[in-house]
Amino acid sequence: METMRANVFRGVNSFEIQEVPKPHAGPGEAVIRITLTTICGTDLHIVRGEYPVRPGLVIGHEPVGVVEELGPGVSGYNVGERVLVGAITPCGQCNACLSGHSSQCGHGSGYSALGGWRFGNTINGAQAEYLLVPYAQANLAKIPPDVTDEQAVLLADIASTGFGGAESAQIKIGDTVVVFAQGPIGLCATAGARLMGAAFIIGVDTDPVRLAMSRRMGADVVLNPQEQDVVAEVKRLTEGGADVAIEALGSQTTFESALRCLRPGGTLSSLGVYSGKLSIPYEAFGAGIADIRIVTTLCPGGKERMRRLLETVRHHRVDLTPLLTHSFSLDNIREAYELFGERRDGVIKVAIHP
Amino acid sequence: METMRANVFRGVNSFEIQEVPKPHAGPGEAVIRITLTTICGTDLHIVRGEYPVRPGLVIGHEPVGVVEELGPGVSGYNVGERVLVGAITPCGQCNACLSGHSSQCGHGSGYSALGGWRFGNTINGAQAEYLLVPYAQANLAKIPPDVTDEQAVLLADIASTGFGGAESAQIKIGDTVVVFAQGPIGLCATAGARLMGAAFIIGVDTDPVRLAMSRRMGADVVLNPQEQDVVAEVKRLTEGGADVAIEALGSQTTFESALRCLRPGGTLSSLGVYSGKLSIPYEAFGAGIADIRIVTTLCPGGKERMRRLLETVRHHRVDLTPLLTHSFSLDNIREAYELFGERRDGVIKVAIHP
Amino acid sequence: METMRANVFRGVNSFEIQEVPKPHAGPGEAVIRITLTTICGTDLHIVRGEYPVRPGLVIGHEPVGVVEELGPGVSGYNVGERVLVGAITPCGQCNACLSGHSSQCGHGSGYSALGGWRFGNTINGAQAEYLLVPYAQANLAKIPPDVTDEQAVLLADIASTGFGGAESAQIKIGDTVVVFAQGPIGLCATAGARLMGAAFIIGVDTDPVRLAMSRRMGADVVLNPQEQDVVAEVKRLTEGGADVAIEALGSQTTFESALRCLRPGGTLSSLGVYSGKLSIPYEAFGAGIADIRIVTTLCPGGKERMRRLLETVRHHRVDLTPLLTHSFSLDNIREAYELFGERRDGVIKVAIHP
Amino acid sequence: METMRANVFRGVNSFEIQEVPKPHAGPGEAVIRITLTTICGTDLHIVRGEYPVRPGLVIGHEPVGVVEELGPGVSGYNVGERVLVGAITPCGQCNACLSGHSSQCGHGSGYSALGGWRFGNTINGAQAEYLLVPYAQANLAKIPPDVTDEQAVLLADIASTGFGGAESAQIKIGDTVVVFAQGPIGLCATAGARLMGAAFIIGVDTDPVRLAMSRRMGADVVLNPQEQDVVAEVKRLTEGGADVAIEALGSQTTFESALRCLRPGGTLSSLGVYSGKLSIPYEAFGAGIADIRIVTTLCPGGKERMRRLLETVRHHRVDLTPLLTHSFSLDNIREAYELFGERRDGVIKVAIHP
Repeated sequence: METMRANVFRGVNSFEIQEVPKPHAGPGEAVIRITLTTICGTDLHIVRGEYPVRPGLVIGHEPVGVVEELGPGVSGYNVGERVLVGAITPCGQCNACLSGHSSQCGHGSGYSALGGWRFGNTINGAQAEYLLVPYAQANLAKIPPDVTDEQAVLLADIASTGFGGAESAQIKIGDTVVVFAQGPIGLCATAGARLMGAAFIIGVDTDPVRLAMSRRMGADVVLNPQEQDVVAEVKRLTEGGADVAIEALGSQTTFESALRCLRPGGTLSSLGVYSGKLSIPYEAFGAGIADIRIVTTLCPGGKERMRRLLETVRHHRVDLTPLLTHSFSLDNIREAYELFGERRDGVIKVAIHP
Repeated sequence: METMRANVFRGVNSFEIQEVPKPHAGPGEAVIRITLTTICGTDLHIVRGEYPVRPGLVIGHEPVGVVEELGPGVSGYNVGERVLVGAITPCGQCNACLSGHSSQCGHGSGYSALGGWRFGNTINGAQAEYLLVPYAQANLAKIPPDVTDEQAVLLADIASTGFGGAESAQIKIGDTVVVFAQGPIGLCATAGARLMGAAFIIGVDTDPVRLAMSRRMGADVVLNPQEQDVVAEVKRLTEGGADVAIEALGSQTTFESALRCLRPGGTLSSLGVYSGKLSIPYEAFGAGIADIRIVTTLCPGGKERMRRLLETVRHHRVDLTPLLTHSFSLDNIREAYELFGERRDGVIKVAIHP
Repeated sequence: METMRANVFRGVNSFEIQEVPKPHAGPGEAVIRITLTTICGTDLHIVRGEYPVRPGLVIGHEPVGVVEELGPGVSGYNVGERVLVGAITPCGQCNACLSGHSSQCGHGSGYSALGGWRFGNTINGAQAEYLLVPYAQANLAKIPPDVTDEQAVLLADIASTGFGGAESAQIKIGDTVVVFAQGPIGLCATAGARLMGAAFIIGVDTDPVRLAMSRRMGADVVLNPQEQDVVAEVKRLTEGGADVAIEALGSQTTFESALRCLRPGGTLSSLGVYSGKLSIPYEAFGAGIADIRIVTTLCPGGKERMRRLLETVRHHRVDLTPLLTHSFSLDNIREAYELFGERRDGVIKVAIHP
Repeated sequence: METMRANVFRGVNSFEIQEVPKPHAGPGEAVIRITLTTICGTDLHIVRGEYPVRPGLVIGHEPVGVVEELGPGVSGYNVGERVLVGAITPCGQCNACLSGHSSQCGHGSGYSALGGWRFGNTINGAQAEYLLVPYAQANLAKIPPDVTDEQAVLLADIASTGFGGAESAQIKIGDTVVVFAQGPIGLCATAGARLMGAAFIIGVDTDPVRLAMSRRMGADVVLNPQEQDVVAEVKRLTEGGADVAIEALGSQTTFESALRCLRPGGTLSSLGVYSGKLSIPYEAFGAGIADIRIVTTLCPGGKERMRRLLETVRHHRVDLTPLLTHSFSLDNIREAYELFGERRDGVIKVAIHP
């Protein structure tokens, strides 16, 4: 049996590069040889046991690679083609997908909460030499020759999620937007707000490196909650409240501050993964009758979404490569996890080369 | 000075019919002679001191009447015409109104939370012989001859709010909808869901009289949380969760249950007025990444909204008159408040005739 | 080789029941045994040579049946289950489908104009004993036990198309709607407008039988262009113009009249299949700056669409069975085509039983 | 009686600077002293008699100025404040305005085709020393100190219209867009498509100067129909058809070419003012069933629209000042009309200083 090297979750606080069976493509599936992947904040949660997955699973959900095998029924692709696959791999044929809710894919029928997220969650993921792609027809996005692997890899999750936060908020030309937390997702939300025509964008974080990057991604002003009352300052700068607030961390504090920054009729677009109960403060919610909307978004996936994002970077609408601050080989992934987990050395995202 | 009889708020748990000055119409205003009004749950909150308004204010925000005076600059109307005025009276000319958020009207500029609600809140209201209507050009809706006062009066607030809950949820043909609480607003939300093409509607309340009315307004099934586990039953009936849940009470319990009833990607449309913090349960919210939306709605107002609702009842799309269960003269309004406040005798809404 | 009886297109004005090979299900496919189908106006166009298809093709695209065979990779279904399949059978996995334009399905990649329509167009259709269903996972909709074949069969095309015309127009509570032509599609558009909350609906046709049916499907008023100036009357009834006009025939006259009936800012929703150039009259189009929208809709398909429509009839939101005015066996289909083509005997739709 | 100098339409091909009465502000009105205005292509149509207005009318609808007088009922403004007023001046209080169709403003009630356009159409316009602004409360937008008159004046019409074409098309991140004609409106549509996140934009014109400006405003590629088959090239560049085509001229040729460039399910956003009948080519329209949408837009107005556009230029999201290629005093406006009308010297827009 052929094997490959992969980063395997062993249990809480335990993972390592192991030899595991190389996958083969069944009907409707493909195998890609990974040429570039990365580590996501969610992978840290998994490794730390904060998000449970089964031991033995290969971690990672941001794959760029080359088609290695095509299963029966997958057409229009050739072995050797460069492809990007989204973190979310919808089937395209269940009720959720056919309703436009493909991140909640039911795998053939119905809806399943978070069901579209399979890589490194319920099936083997991308921190490996090879990756089995389910529903390949719906999920292999060809990478144009003028787009590099480095440009593509950040689209699989962080750009799709971050832009998705701006899209779910239905940002319009002229909107004022505040983005809470300027990690990879928040930085992409900032870039997404800029892409959609927001007139004035405020980035919020406590880390000066990330605030500097926030400006580079499109923020007009950055605010540090350790230095000032962010809600008051947002209200002052926006003359009464922002049209849209994006939450990109997943904490009660950022959620609540985001809500407090809104004008009546404003939209809170939440991207964070929360633990435990969230509270909605009464007055910031206008007692329930201030026409506030709260929308949430799980990373949109599928090859059409990836194609659109690839076109966006291909035509230089946004350059996310500054976010890829460090590079490691797959064999040194432990070192990458440490750097990324500890947020050392100005790290934002790390490139992992199998 | 001419006077009129009006129901005046005196302080917590104190109100009475008094003689107060009859209003006159300044520029852009109108005075109408009230022919029918009603009592709203919000009026009970005011009387009980749960929602603060200034003593001396005339209570009530659901006016049907006849044009008595037209101020300078109001055109296209004649004294003596029958009109309906919405509970919310937008100016049409502030930034909120011009952005389509007229319930958060800023009175000429900006946004003001709940600012569109003035009658019986910040200016004298409708439980009186006469009512001064601000921004009359934007707020006087002529009543077609074939629509009775009784058909019209419920449109000012409860139909506009209840239907608004269905509209904000963007109900589509074939949706499954559950409506928590079947008071006047919830009953109208049920009717609104039906009007918009929901295929299957579940009404929830503890009161058998209201559950019977829920069926009459369009519910296919009604559930009583005192008799069964409503969330489990909704999930069973909808095979996994409702597309839309509407909250029409304003309590943590109903808000939370509504959220728990949703399928991934579903929408919670909240109409209730809450007090204190609201909690969002972690798992029902899919940890923030189940593509759940929470939308809130304050009663849409303005003459075009009222015109559309008048057309809806005029052409028999919905008959809300069964909700008008009791009738009182203005002079007997205390008795009406008692009946309505205690929910005696199957009361849903009371007609008040000045 | 097993054979089956099927209605085969032979060339212009020529078709007949023949024995043809019974299909078998390949990967991702299913075969259903047809229990009920019908004839569509489009089939008449095909038979008359007005819409070109290849000789030898089995005609028909409105199938109700029972699962006979399931190909590899199709899961969640059992042989013997009753299913409805839409006239349009999207793959769910191409760029068009993943963008929400599944009627323009590109079969695995890209977009293809009208590409989702395959039955009786590019592959064998439903006027047969058996039908091969492509992309079965995305297209087999289980029929609830309490929905009859007769209730289901009209959903495959005419209800999905007609309702789709109302949906594409984004009809809102209180809208006024005029529907030009009250054939099967127009009648369903009328029913769809009603379902979505239109306050006032005008049906237009020259056939008194169809006008009577129009009222039954939800029209408040019906107009006959042979008897009056329909545009003038619509403008009178709507006090200036309808919010929405639906075209359901496919002629210059109805298209133009529909446009002329609109208020400024109104929407023309076009369902007809046109031949030759269409003209947009200058003044009815407000010289291009009256904020008019023209939207077109090809029948939405896929199992989720069919599931929603099945729920709609199951819960008695609409009863389309009166449209199924006549019934024939498959062997007598020539007689059915004649009756249907000549619009004799008040025919609207014919049931065909294999 | 005080007089002012103004550019008065005298009849076909006749206009001149005259002394006319200086306006005064009645209830709800304001007078502004014009500090900068410009000439629009529509003004040329008026002068040439192609769009009829009454002789004696002051021409022009793009005003920047300073508040001179405030009529009774206008609040929140001070004499001397710098303001921008949109070309379209909605009342905010009629049915059209309250429905969100403020360009079709009915002036107090109903809808009126093109009714929001009053300046230089039905009331005196902006090519004058002073301008009477109707519905001032809804239409005076304060100009932030850091926005110049030159930055503001192009927002009144061309930016609002051009961006409006992109907005009505509902451009999404990743869309491909082709814009036919790169005059002032088309250039702003190009900029608007860029602002909303279009990934790839093609500008089409025959004038090399305008094509160069098209690139500056955001086009990735420019095409000249005198040099190549634009439709074929757009289809090649977009691999099958653009998501959106914007028409910004008002001719059968550009309308038809725009339609031919679309992919199935695409949107044609039309901004041009047409004369005579428009034809829709059968095959480009997919016989009516390719899910094509045609949307039209009259310049959105009102102070909230202007405020949003002012924020957009204030924060450097777009720089339109390169479009203001020439400058004249009001007294030399004839010379400006000649230059502008003959498109000499690379003119795009001319600044007129009273």
